[in-house]
Amino acid sequence: MRENETMMVDMYELTMAQTYFNEGKQNEMVYFEGFFRKIPFQNGYALMGGGDEVIDYIKNLKFTKNDIEYLRSLNKFTPEFLSYLENFEFHGTIDMIPDGTPVFGNEPVITVRGNLIEAQIIETAVLSYLNSGILFTTAAKRMTEAAGDVPIMEFGARRANTPSAATMASKCSYIAGCSGTSNVKAGMLYDIPVMGTMAHSMVTEAESEYDAFLAFAKTYPNDTVLLVDTYDTLNSGIPNAIRVAKEYLIPNGYRLKGIRIDSGDLAYLSKEARKMLDEAGLTDAKICLSNGLNPTTIRSLKIQGAMMDSIGAGDNIVAPKERVGVVYKLVAKEEQGTIIPKIKVSSDRFKTIHPGYKKVYRFYDNNTGYALGDVLAFPHENIDLEHYTLINPNDETCRKELCNYTVKELQTRIFEDGNFVYENPTVLEKRDYCNEQMDTLYEEIRRFENPAIYYVDLSEEVLECKKRLILEHKGKIKTLSK
Amino acid sequence: MRENETMMVDMYELTMAQTYFNEGKQNEMVYFEGFFRKIPFQNGYALMGGGDEVIDYIKNLKFTKNDIEYLRSLNKFTPEFLSYLENFEFHGTIDMIPDGTPVFGNEPVITVRGNLIEAQIIETAVLSYLNSGILFTTAAKRMTEAAGDVPIMEFGARRANTPSAATMASKCSYIAGCSGTSNVKAGMLYDIPVMGTMAHSMVTEAESEYDAFLAFAKTYPNDTVLLVDTYDTLNSGIPNAIRVAKEYLIPNGYRLKGIRIDSGDLAYLSKEARKMLDEAGLTDAKICLSNGLNPTTIRSLKIQGAMMDSIGAGDNIVAPKERVGVVYKLVAKEEQGTIIPKIKVSSDRFKTIHPGYKKVYRFYDNNTGYALGDVLAFPHENIDLEHYTLINPNDETCRKELCNYTVKELQTRIFEDGNFVYENPTVLEKRDYCNEQMDTLYEEIRRFENPAIYYVDLSEEVLECKKRLILEHKGKIKTLSK
Repeated sequence: MRENETMMVDMYELTMAQTYFNEGKQNEMVYFEGFFRKIPFQNGYALMGGGDEVIDYIKNLKFTKNDIEYLRSLNKFTPEFLSYLENFEFHGTIDMIPDGTPVFGNEPVITVRGNLIEAQIIETAVLSYLNSGILFTTAAKRMTEAAGDVPIMEFGARRANTPSAATMASKCSYIAGCSGTSNVKAGMLYDIPVMGTMAHSMVTEAESEYDAFLAFAKTYPNDTVLLVDTYDTLNSGIPNAIRVAKEYLIPNGYRLKGIRIDSGDLAYLSKEARKMLDEAGLTDAKICLSNGLNPTTIRSLKIQGAMMDSIGAGDNIVAPKERVGVVYKLVAKEEQGTIIPKIKVSSDRFKTIHPGYKKVYRFYDNNTGYALGDVLAFPHENIDLEHYTLINPNDETCRKELCNYTVKELQTRIFEDGNFVYENPTVLEKRDYCNEQMDTLYEEIRRFENPAIYYVDLSEEVLECKKRLILEHKGKIKTLSK
Repeated sequence: MRENETMMVDMYELTMAQTYFNEGKQNEMVYFEGFFRKIPFQNGYALMGGGDEVIDYIKNLKFTKNDIEYLRSLNKFTPEFLSYLENFEFHGTIDMIPDGTPVFGNEPVITVRGNLIEAQIIETAVLSYLNSGILFTTAAKRMTEAAGDVPIMEFGARRANTPSAATMASKCSYIAGCSGTSNVKAGMLYDIPVMGTMAHSMVTEAESEYDAFLAFAKTYPNDTVLLVDTYDTLNSGIPNAIRVAKEYLIPNGYRLKGIRIDSGDLAYLSKEARKMLDEAGLTDAKICLSNGLNPTTIRSLKIQGAMMDSIGAGDNIVAPKERVGVVYKLVAKEEQGTIIPKIKVSSDRFKTIHPGYKKVYRFYDNNTGYALGDVLAFPHENIDLEHYTLINPNDETCRKELCNYTVKELQTRIFEDGNFVYENPTVLEKRDYCNEQMDTLYEEIRRFENPAIYYVDLSEEVLECKKRLILEHKGKIKTLSK
């Protein structure tokens, strides 16, 4: 159970909530959708993440007596509203796309149906979790894709923006296909393989590099991976590692498991290291490379034929220099049981939201299994199972005819009227699921540079509704500004 | 009290610790320094941050029975070592530069003296806190510097990598001079002003923009700040805000406090808004601008004469696209009570560390109060109070003679032999302190682009020691590779 983050809420959620409360609107039912507009890293897809954390957050949602006293001290809230908050419980319904699913711009990764206050109040924390989860998972997948069959161990904890982000990033990177983490807490919480051997300090502390290696080998004879770049990789580190193998490990029935190179020209050093190890008969000793590696440098190492059996990576998973920008927008409200679509119009047409409470459908080719595109449609719409026309919402003349496909709804019910109704997979299950989902993406979507653009289209009905609402709003404004 | 983050530790800290334990080295005393090499944002200075969190982390440092059971399950640790960990307490000594102090590359922002195991084990979490604290505080200061006398309110919570990072960033940004935060939790924990009014959803949800504005004004007549860009800032938002002022607020004895514009051409819209408000007699209504603003766009708005009384900013404080890269290096060990300097030599000469346990001194000009430079010196050295020569450690021919100065030691004792001995200032006191400290920096260091480079030099003794150790190590490697 994580910390209760109910108070990690933007003040305006509460000032709006009190306004709704004063107006007697607290039982009006509304729909919010969370989505991002642009895939980070110029990637062809993002991966859903943070759903787990949203679940825990909602389960723990509760204002404590202390919280209420603090809010009272701000002199912004009435006693009636504070008493409402004190008894506040989340009774809404939440649908989400499961963690590890490829997701794209402008499709709701989360949909919340609830009363105006509960649906609004959760915005801040939900967005923070989704923004970080999608960022970490997508960043890690971009690394594992670049590395191909070379396993990546995540060890970024020290570079994360707080330990809490570190632990979340470790989990996300494992879902995205990393082989393990250095973060012991993540290992414990999520049952992820934890890995780690030695730091440079162990070598500088010792009388000599050889002494440090020998001490480590004695403690971990089955697991001796030696960090060889503290002083001089080729002239000191590797010779000392070989010496420990020959003088201690092999005579005692063990093998040198491997070495790690953490600085210098990794392509060159790794090839020289391989030769030296092989010549010493240590052909089974593995080489691990690290040092701020990112997808571009990993690809470069592969192209140069660097000899690497594994990669250690941190910064570019746990603290990527990117943001996702998930937003949370009101898309509909209920009036006498009818769902009324709502819109926010922007002068930047790509920022005008898709109105209405919508479902996300993914079409898969029956012959290849590949995902052909996604469609946002109203829940009452029947998706034709034989034939469907994808229409580009930004240019109606761009159309694509689909047939011989299978359709799946992407979102899953997580909370229903406040009750948790989901069977949350284990982290390992999420990892397997993510891997399977990746196989549904065309190579052209997965590729590293200039990926093809995946279709995220609107049903004809949603598109017509959007046009109608935009024009209605323009009409109203025209009347007003006369 | 924050969560116990003892297990947020890289596995290799523990595998090294067990090796030290097996060697009987657990009582050897060592010195570690934490420092960054490069100031982020190409800024002329960074600001210390995260010290608060380090303090809390150390105070809570303790392996629980659960933790020990998990570690046992990994089959990597002996019962003796696990029992050692179960009874583990931090008895070390920690000196830090206080939060809010301008800091520069290669100077120790933290120095830890402790036994090999305790000093090593805290590395991962300490670095995570310092990396995020320095990043957030420096990012926020760069924003407030760009904004000059226009106050900046931080409202980035939703974009933070986890709520925990959001709350930490809110605090750091207040220390750096932001006027307040939207994050209610940060407000409660740190006694920071919390601010917030309304979101676009409030407008889209209502029957009309006017209805939404009126409802808000009725709830907060003393604090009516209206978000005017939901549909059309000039043709709908501002006219409706003026109407609410004239039809409701003024007749009831109130004033319109202000408006916020969150999209579109902020320079143009703010000038038009100012004219419209002034023409309506609302000359006292303030204009707040927001929308992913960063130091460059803030400066641009100022140059264009945008009419802004305040700025709302988030992403670029709580989730900057940068990293600090604080590292934690062993610099010395004690042998029979003598401190022996240690070095890590790198083929990249700028990455070779400054060896030895050092203190950081800052020289201030007695006439102007400006900081002239910092010097790293061994504790036994006497710093001449009349005359000092700064020597560039990368080029000994670059020297600068100082006289008529005052010298201050930058680090403060926080823990002594495990006891907390510091009087931690309140967040507000830190904010005032940071502000004073900024006044000691030359304009040329503070400036936005191509700042002058601040001197961080070594005492002659440290420099000589560094050269000697490098040559000694090169000699050893030469012998080895023969």
